[in-house]
Amino acid sequence: MSTDSVTVHGYSTSGNCHKVRLVLEQVGRPYQWIEVDSPNGATRTAAYLAKNPNGKVPMLERADGAVLTESNAIICWLAEGTPMMPTDAWQRAQALSWLFFEQYSHEPYVAVARFVRGWTPIDSPRRADLPRLIERGEQALAVMERHLGRHKWFTGPGYGVADVALFAYTHCAADGGFDLGKFPAVEGWLARVGRTPHFVPMPLPHDDVRTLLAQH
Amino acid sequence: MSTDSVTVHGYSTSGNCHKVRLVLEQVGRPYQWIEVDSPNGATRTAAYLAKNPNGKVPMLERADGAVLTESNAIICWLAEGTPMMPTDAWQRAQALSWLFFEQYSHEPYVAVARFVRGWTPIDSPRRADLPRLIERGEQALAVMERHLGRHKWFTGPGYGVADVALFAYTHCAADGGFDLGKFPAVEGWLARVGRTPHFVPMPLPHDDVRTLLAQH
Repeated sequence: MSTDSVTVHGYSTSGNCHKVRLVLEQVGRPYQWIEVDSPNGATRTAAYLAKNPNGKVPMLERADGAVLTESNAIICWLAEGTPMMPTDAWQRAQALSWLFFEQYSHEPYVAVARFVRGWTPIDSPRRADLPRLIERGEQALAVMERHLGRHKWFTGPGYGVADVALFAYTHCAADGGFDLGKFPAVEGWLARVGRTPHFVPMPLPHDDVRTLLAQH
Repeated sequence: MSTDSVTVHGYSTSGNCHKVRLVLEQVGRPYQWIEVDSPNGATRTAAYLAKNPNGKVPMLERADGAVLTESNAIICWLAEGTPMMPTDAWQRAQALSWLFFEQYSHEPYVAVARFVRGWTPIDSPRRADLPRLIERGEQALAVMERHLGRHKWFTGPGYGVADVALFAYTHCAADGGFDLGKFPAVEGWLARVGRTPHFVPMPLPHDDVRTLLAQH
């Protein structure tokens, strides 16, 4: 593993961005964090789009200016050569499978429900989507619950990248209106993740977001 | 690379499933294909869900019964140790980044528009989503067009897994109502992919689907 310092462009209370911070802390790699106000258009400026034409956070930048995007690709690169990434080819593929599950079947519902509740106005038409987001998000949580009936972690025999990716928005699913009490194995796994060495919690959202999240 | 035969459970005219067939053909690995009628509920049976609780195709099964899901995880595993997967860590991460881009920013629009037009009734309420799907899908195609202004392939210096993943639904984007004429570099790259060794085209959809796709 390289120990060169890297720069992360991220929005701290985004689960996708927090994945990167958590892996950096847990593998002990030095980094600089540049806060990007993505909900208010900071990823849509010409300067940002020149580096990431897809206009999203997080983005990792090396000292030589080379850029890597997509949270799950970033954490795989950071974890390579550490215990957080399996070495066995089949187990790596299983970890990758969970990473794709997270981005396709989990994040678009569990994370988006949180975003709609906390980052859109109380009268936003997007709030009409919430029942469908909850239904589909619960399907993803049920798949996780079932896996945890037979396994301790998602990455492999040990904790690693797939656990980080799934932790990112599962641990704050209540913000989106999910009842994690229905998924006791998921709750147990969340607690185990929180006890891993060098774990850092995701910062709380700003006050205006917390006010919206508190309204039911 | 292992050369053991594998079994693929897939729906042949799904781009996600065709990714797996294309890589199997191009790396020369023996396989058995079990056709799964996913649009008509075949991934929601108890027997299927016992193997893949997320209820999706494609699914790869080894001779020992071990299962791997998620199209992009499957093609990474199949391509490991072949020229279709980069060996350099940074280049691998860039290929992975495109694979996550495909599943998050491309497939939910480009593939879903095709699905809505070809696999839902002509009076389906889902057709109201088409303008938004086209708009977001065109944003993904524009990101690809920009990359191809400076690079020949998505995977790295050579063709590989990220090209397969992005080819899967881009080559049939017209089915979803996209005008690829707006993206000339993408059209050139599609033609290059079609000329790679051992390339196999995706089968045409069934007649009923083709009838729906022909209606504008």
